[in-house]
Amino acid sequence: MRDVSIIGIGQVPVGDLWEKPIYILAVEAMLAAIHDSKVEQIDAVYVGNMLSSTLAGQDLLAGLVADHVGLRGVEAVKVEAACSSGGIAFREGYLAVASGLVNFALVCGVEKMLDHPGEEITEGLVSAADADWESAVGDSFVAINARLMQRYMYEYNIQHEDFAPFPINAHHNAVNNPNAMLRYELSKAQFDKARMIADPINLLDCSPVCDGAAAVILCPTEMARQFSPYPIKVRGSAVATDSLALHDRHNLLRLEAVALSAQKAFEQARVQPQDIDFFEVHDAFSIMAVASLEACGFSEPGKGVYLGLDGEIGINGKLPLCTMGGLKARGHPVGATGMYQIVEAMMQLRGLAGKNQVKDATIGMAQNIGGSGSNVVTHIFEREA
Amino acid sequence: MRDVSIIGIGQVPVGDLWEKPIYILAVEAMLAAIHDSKVEQIDAVYVGNMLSSTLAGQDLLAGLVADHVGLRGVEAVKVEAACSSGGIAFREGYLAVASGLVNFALVCGVEKMLDHPGEEITEGLVSAADADWESAVGDSFVAINARLMQRYMYEYNIQHEDFAPFPINAHHNAVNNPNAMLRYELSKAQFDKARMIADPINLLDCSPVCDGAAAVILCPTEMARQFSPYPIKVRGSAVATDSLALHDRHNLLRLEAVALSAQKAFEQARVQPQDIDFFEVHDAFSIMAVASLEACGFSEPGKGVYLGLDGEIGINGKLPLCTMGGLKARGHPVGATGMYQIVEAMMQLRGLAGKNQVKDATIGMAQNIGGSGSNVVTHIFEREA
Repeated sequence: MRDVSIIGIGQVPVGDLWEKPIYILAVEAMLAAIHDSKVEQIDAVYVGNMLSSTLAGQDLLAGLVADHVGLRGVEAVKVEAACSSGGIAFREGYLAVASGLVNFALVCGVEKMLDHPGEEITEGLVSAADADWESAVGDSFVAINARLMQRYMYEYNIQHEDFAPFPINAHHNAVNNPNAMLRYELSKAQFDKARMIADPINLLDCSPVCDGAAAVILCPTEMARQFSPYPIKVRGSAVATDSLALHDRHNLLRLEAVALSAQKAFEQARVQPQDIDFFEVHDAFSIMAVASLEACGFSEPGKGVYLGLDGEIGINGKLPLCTMGGLKARGHPVGATGMYQIVEAMMQLRGLAGKNQVKDATIGMAQNIGGSGSNVVTHIFEREA
Repeated sequence: MRDVSIIGIGQVPVGDLWEKPIYILAVEAMLAAIHDSKVEQIDAVYVGNMLSSTLAGQDLLAGLVADHVGLRGVEAVKVEAACSSGGIAFREGYLAVASGLVNFALVCGVEKMLDHPGEEITEGLVSAADADWESAVGDSFVAINARLMQRYMYEYNIQHEDFAPFPINAHHNAVNNPNAMLRYELSKAQFDKARMIADPINLLDCSPVCDGAAAVILCPTEMARQFSPYPIKVRGSAVATDSLALHDRHNLLRLEAVALSAQKAFEQARVQPQDIDFFEVHDAFSIMAVASLEACGFSEPGKGVYLGLDGEIGINGKLPLCTMGGLKARGHPVGATGMYQIVEAMMQLRGLAGKNQVKDATIGMAQNIGGSGSNVVTHIFEREA
C-alpha cells in the first residue's frame, strides 16, 4: 500500500446552521478543502454521516453532495458508524488512495441535528446503542454513559469534581477557535454546580447537539508536495469494534476497541504513546475522554483523571487534549466530529493553530468513537520534515 | 492492486422473516458464507444496509453483526447507498482485499422491511430520492419511476404490455430458486390486468417489499484455491453517480451512472457487452431493467424492450437476465439486494444453479442501483479455468 498525505482541509463553523440544508454544509466544507489545496481533480468522494436518513429523510447523501460540489459521476460512498462516521469515512478515503485505486479522494463528515431538537434527537442518538437490549428498555445515550461513569467512580474511588479539568480545558481552547460553538471559559464552580442530566453526568460533562461539516483531500505522499505547501502524512490508521451493549463487555471499564484500535495505529506508525505531541480525544462525555486515555495507554487504569488534575492536558502540558475545543466546546455534530478532529490536527501540524499552537507539534493523534466505545477509529499523523 | 476472488457465499431465503431481528438475518447469511469456504480467519467486515437506522432504530450495524458472528474486535464498516448498499459494501470489501490491507473480508447485505408495512416503508424508501426537491413535494419512489416509464413510453412509442417479458421471466426463474420469495409463474394476462400503482407502473412492474440477507467472503486470487473448490474472480468493479433528482438529469431517459459504471467495469475486465453470459440486472421496476440494458450497451436506446419481446432474456437466450428471479421475484430487500445478485452470480459461475443453470456460464455481470439511477455499482465476475 502507498503512503498517503492530506493536502487540503476545510470546515464550516459549528453551530445552529438552520439556514442551510445538510448537503450545503457538506459542500461548503468540501469546496474549502479543494480551495485549500492546488488539486484540480477528485477521483472519489467519501462521506460520513449518522442521522440524515432519520432526521432529514435523505439517503444516498454521498452522491448528492458530490453532485452539488460539481463532481457528478464520481464514485461516492457514504459510511455510517454513529458518532465515528467521520473517522470511518476518512479511513475509507485513506484506503482508496493507499490501494492505488485513486489518486485524489475528498472526504467529508457532516451532520445537521438542531432542526430536530428534544426527543427526536435523543431517539436518533440512541440508535448508536443496542436497539434490542438498551434503547428498547428505555435507555438514552447519556444514561448509558452515566452507568459507565458511575461504575468508574465507584471502582476507582474517583469524585465527580475530578473530571472538571477536561471540560474546562476544552472550553479554554475553544475560545481561540473561530469555528467552535461554545467559545467561553468554564469555571470549576460552574462545572460542579451544573444541572444533573443522568446521575452522575451533569450538563457540563456533555458535548452539545449542533450542526457542522469538515473535509479533507487525500493523495499519495509522493505527489503531495505538488498540491500543498504543508502536506501531512497519515502514519497510522486502524479501526476496531466492541459489543454495542455496555453490559456485554468483559470488563465494563476497559474500552477494548479503543485499546485495540490505538495499539494497531501505534504499531503501524511505529510510535509509542509518549511520542504523541497532542491528542484529539473523543470527549463526547467527560468519562469517555478519561476511559479512552486509559485504554490508549496514556495512563494506568483508574488514573486517567490525574492527567487533568496534574495539569498535563493543556496546550503546554505533557499531552495536550482537544486543542481546538474538542467535542465538548467546539461541538459534536456527530457524523462530522471525526473529520473536525482531523482538520484540527492538520492545523496543529501545519503550525497554523494560532494561540492554541502546540509547540513543535510533529506527531498528532485523533480518535473517533461510535457508540459507547463500540466502533473506534484511530489516526496518527506526522508533519513531514 | 491485487486480484480478488470470492471463496464463500451464503444467503437466507427472502420473505417475511418476522421472527428474527435484523442482525440475526445478517449473522445467518455470514455464517453460511464462512461454512461454504474453508476460511478460518476474517480480517474485516463490510455491511450494506439502507433502512435499519430509520426502521429499527439501529445504527452501528456492522459492529453489531460482527460481534454476533463471533468476530468481536474486527474492523467493521457499514455503508449506506439506498438500494445499492449491498453492492457498495461488496465494493469496499473488494477494495480492502485488493489494496493488501486484509486477506479475508466478509461482506453482507441485509434488510428487514416487513416489520413496518404501509406508509412507514414508503417514507423510508423515498429517502433514496432528493429530499428537498422530490420527496418534500409528495413524491413516492414508485411515482418517480412512473415518470421515467411514462416518458420512455412516449418518446419511444412503447406500450405498457411490451414490458411484460421482464417480470414474466423473473417469476419463471424464481420458481426453481428455493431462496426466492415469489415462486410462481406469471402470465401475460395477469401482468396486463394488474392493479395500477402509479400510472403507468402497475403492481407487477414492481419488486416486493421483503426481508433478507446475503453474504460472501473475498480473498486474494492467489490464495483462493486453498479455500474453495470453485473460486470466482472479480474481473471488474466500478461505481458511478448521477443527480439524485430525476429532473436534474441532462437526458431523462439515459441512465448516465449506469452507463459510466458499466463502461468502467467493462474496461477493467477487458470485455465487451457481448462477452457477458448472463446479467443480474436491477429490475426494481420493469422500466429500470429496460433503461439499464440500454445504458449498459446491451441494446440501442429505445430498443431495450425488444430483448424481452424477442425472447433473448431467458436462461437459454442471448442475454439471460435475473437468472434466480431478480428483484421482481426473488425479492428486493433493498440493502441486501446487491449481495443476493452477487451470490446468485456465483451459483451460475460455479455451475450450481440447478434447473436455471446458464450453459457454459463463464463471465457474469451484476449491477446494483441506488435511487432512480443515482448510485450505480457494476461487478463483472469470471469462473477460473
